[in-house]
Amino acid sequence: GDAEAGKAKTATCVACHGAEGIAAVPVYPNLAGQNEAYLVSALKAYKSKERNGGMAAVMQANAAALSDEDIADLAAYYSSLK
Amino acid sequence: GDAEAGKAKTATCVACHGAEGIAAVPVYPNLAGQNEAYLVSALKAYKSKERNGGMAAVMQANAAALSDEDIADLAAYYSSLK
Repeated sequence: GDAEAGKAKTATCVACHGAEGIAAVPVYPNLAGQNEAYLVSALKAYKSKERNGGMAAVMQANAAALSDEDIADLAAYYSSLK
Repeated sequence: GDAEAGKAKTATCVACHGAEGIAAVPVYPNLAGQNEAYLVSALKAYKSKERNGGMAAVMQANAAALSDEDIADLAAYYSSLK
C-alpha cells in the first residue's frame, strides 16, 4: 500500500489508536510498527465480520467503509511508524 | 499478570511471534510492547472462538489451552518487551 495515502485516511483511527499509532486506551492495540501483512489480515477480518469478541464491533463498523486499497494504504502507513 | 511467569509459558508462541515478540513472518503480529489489556482481549476472543478470519484458526488452537491466568501472564510479559 501507499503510506502517504494511508495517512490521509486515518481521521477516524486516531481517536482510539492515537496520532502516532500508540493507542490512547490500553484495551486498543498500538499500531505503530505493526506488520503490514498482519494489519491487512486483521482489517479484512473485521470488514468480513469474521473477527468478533472484545472491541471488534467498533472495528467492524470502521472497517466496513474501507476499500481494499484503503486497507492496503492504512496498513502501509501504520507499519511505517516506529 | 506476572511477566516472569508469562515468559515461562511462551514455548509455543516463539515459533511465530519470535523470541523477542517480533514476528518471524509479517502475517503474524509483533507482540513486543503491545498493550496488556488488548492482548488479554485478543487472546480471550481466540479462546472463545469469536475471533476468526486470517490466521485465527492457528491462534484459536493455541489459546484453547490457556487459562485466564496464563493469558494474564502472557499479556504482561509481551507488553513488558520493548
